[in-house]
Amino acid sequence: MIHVGVVGFGTVGTGTVRILLDSKELLKERVGIDINLKRVADVDVRRDRGIKLPKGVLTSDADALISDPDISIVVELIGGTTVARELVLRAIRNGKHVVTANKALLATHGAEIFGAAEKANVGVGFEASVAGGIPIIKVIREGLVANRIKAIYGIINGTTNYILTKMTEERREFDEVLAEAQRLGYAEANPAYDIDGTDSAHKLAILASLSYGARFSIGDVYREGISWISPMDIEFARELGYKLKLLAITKEIDGKVELRVHPTMIPEGNLISKVDGVFNAVYVEGDAVGATLYYGRGAGDMPTGSAVVSDIVDIAKGIVLGAGKGLFMPAVSRKAGSRMKMDDVLTMYYFRFSAIDKPGVLSKISGILGKHNISIASVIQKGRRIGRAVPLVVLTHQARERDVVTAVKEINRLSNVAGKTVFIRVEDRESA
Amino acid sequence: MIHVGVVGFGTVGTGTVRILLDSKELLKERVGIDINLKRVADVDVRRDRGIKLPKGVLTSDADALISDPDISIVVELIGGTTVARELVLRAIRNGKHVVTANKALLATHGAEIFGAAEKANVGVGFEASVAGGIPIIKVIREGLVANRIKAIYGIINGTTNYILTKMTEERREFDEVLAEAQRLGYAEANPAYDIDGTDSAHKLAILASLSYGARFSIGDVYREGISWISPMDIEFARELGYKLKLLAITKEIDGKVELRVHPTMIPEGNLISKVDGVFNAVYVEGDAVGATLYYGRGAGDMPTGSAVVSDIVDIAKGIVLGAGKGLFMPAVSRKAGSRMKMDDVLTMYYFRFSAIDKPGVLSKISGILGKHNISIASVIQKGRRIGRAVPLVVLTHQARERDVVTAVKEINRLSNVAGKTVFIRVEDRESA
Repeated sequence: MIHVGVVGFGTVGTGTVRILLDSKELLKERVGIDINLKRVADVDVRRDRGIKLPKGVLTSDADALISDPDISIVVELIGGTTVARELVLRAIRNGKHVVTANKALLATHGAEIFGAAEKANVGVGFEASVAGGIPIIKVIREGLVANRIKAIYGIINGTTNYILTKMTEERREFDEVLAEAQRLGYAEANPAYDIDGTDSAHKLAILASLSYGARFSIGDVYREGISWISPMDIEFARELGYKLKLLAITKEIDGKVELRVHPTMIPEGNLISKVDGVFNAVYVEGDAVGATLYYGRGAGDMPTGSAVVSDIVDIAKGIVLGAGKGLFMPAVSRKAGSRMKMDDVLTMYYFRFSAIDKPGVLSKISGILGKHNISIASVIQKGRRIGRAVPLVVLTHQARERDVVTAVKEINRLSNVAGKTVFIRVEDRESA
Repeated sequence: MIHVGVVGFGTVGTGTVRILLDSKELLKERVGIDINLKRVADVDVRRDRGIKLPKGVLTSDADALISDPDISIVVELIGGTTVARELVLRAIRNGKHVVTANKALLATHGAEIFGAAEKANVGVGFEASVAGGIPIIKVIREGLVANRIKAIYGIINGTTNYILTKMTEERREFDEVLAEAQRLGYAEANPAYDIDGTDSAHKLAILASLSYGARFSIGDVYREGISWISPMDIEFARELGYKLKLLAITKEIDGKVELRVHPTMIPEGNLISKVDGVFNAVYVEGDAVGATLYYGRGAGDMPTGSAVVSDIVDIAKGIVLGAGKGLFMPAVSRKAGSRMKMDDVLTMYYFRFSAIDKPGVLSKISGILGKHNISIASVIQKGRRIGRAVPLVVLTHQARERDVVTAVKEINRLSNVAGKTVFIRVEDRESA
């Protein structure tokens, strides 16, 4: 029998506990191991979670749990990067295997945690840290083990995908949709980490570390949020055949790894652009398999609990089989990754200039773009209002981020340009 | 060092060999194991496959390979159910772990093979047998281990999906598109097993066995092919908001498992209905994760080779860790599955009647449907040609297959019905 202790009895904790209780027999039948939930620790031991725990299981004493000699797997579901870090490190030092759903923790202190786990010869499972119910960690690490990963495009934050979907389908403003999402429980009271791309960036650091066998952390990821997106740009995207999504992107190019999270226009025919609402999806391109895509719920008590329990089962199998080091490969290599600077990124761009409708403005703008090696693929100019500002939309071929930033600064200073230029990156891969 | 022998140097064999040679270092870095391709056996040792094998690796003697004491993993890629069965059973008896891409073999002789493997305490990897590059076996068996599988809908035959996609997009006839697919290499010279649903049925038997922990074989699967599909029905489907796909479906309802492969209309808004061309996708609904979907190439040398190598790596890890029985769980339980008879299946239906355009015909038809508990959801009647046969399309609510078959027989005997009634099953789940 393998004893498990869960610390943190919130949303994911509740899902995890429910599965461990309800599916005990099923798991035993499937993998031949008795997995026993011995303790659940939470500061709040009174609140009714709608689950009847066996007597003596619930405790407020997390310390006792992680030093219980019976318990071999500690599940950390309290979140945050301070108490959680302490707790995980102490559990590892006590020789416990750890399962966590905590992307912020891994993207910030991953090197320390995986280093400690390697030293203690224990496993750290983190399937639940990225894209909830989608077993993307297992897919990349095991299913696609024979592949060099060419690129990953992820919709890995349900809140922002819900907001962008609503803005797209109902042509509404960001603020209004956000308020509605908060009312409906699809966005938190403080949604900053979702909205500004931080949550996606945490997850991307984990995916890139796995895919490229090198250590990347949150500081390596370029981030842009969605709060500045206007329905006008979503509408222009549609006219151009694109859909706007908050994508987490990583690619390896000549030994350098791109890591970036930003609103991105993608061809509306691609499968990933059909991923709407709170759903997540991760597109993974391997050199052998080519295009693949994985779709499911990115959050929620039961989907995330399902991922936590799959890690518990994997570790339990390892324990029973007497497997040591190696089964519990550190996900993050000791070698630091080589990141491509955002300035060096090469991609396509959408520009929306606020151009004063006077002869010569397009020629001025295109002159500056040309000077900075930015070549125009198409132009849309909507509505004529002589002498007043109108949107002028330009789609480019591949250009360098550094050149784009410089050109935009120069264009914004033109007397014929009335406001700040909006630019959004465009990914135009054929498949998925 | 783990030595591997590959039997069958055709398409998948070539992909597998290429990955084992080109990614030897990558695999060693990722999992810490030296995986060595010791022998490749094929009856044809002369043909140039574009790969330079080290001297002494290629042999025509498969027997020597499977009795080589150095080799611990035998990869069977010869296909078919006679020689392959012999070879796999002998390899197992020799204490070799086996990796195979052979769905026909497993769906026909799975019980025998998994039984022998269990007795010999060796593993049988078969990731490559279903949906090539999509790691669907691993996803179901490990990633979703904490889930009761509610339903699986798979597009798991690239040839038929290519043909239906072309028929849909270009409004062309089956025969014409099939001939083109054969010219382009998307359909084999003898495409019978693809076209008639047998290939999908083999794969479905494997997926259902995994999902429901019980043994199902090809004989348990109801099959209908696509050769009788007419562009007219695809067009009516479109009008009704559906897309036509050859789906492999398995669900568990009250302890009985449905297993069926047939042309199916699915809502065009669902993600799986966007899966076009030779691509495969498997929708899996678990009780904890809810809707998930996995998408990628279902065939080809490199995608399938990627799956074969992922199995080799998993087994190599098990060998290195000294893991015995348990890691190599038999996929197929010893207990035989309980299949739901096709007659008892409950689903929605699309009917196209060839009705003589005379007053009263709809009332006669709907009378017969009603008598058999088939309730009409909507009706389309196109074009009036008094006294001549016109298509009358009816969409039903949920009905029982047995009742439908009986009603159709009765309706076909009506003097006002000119030809055989076409009926196509409709799956109308909300998600994915």
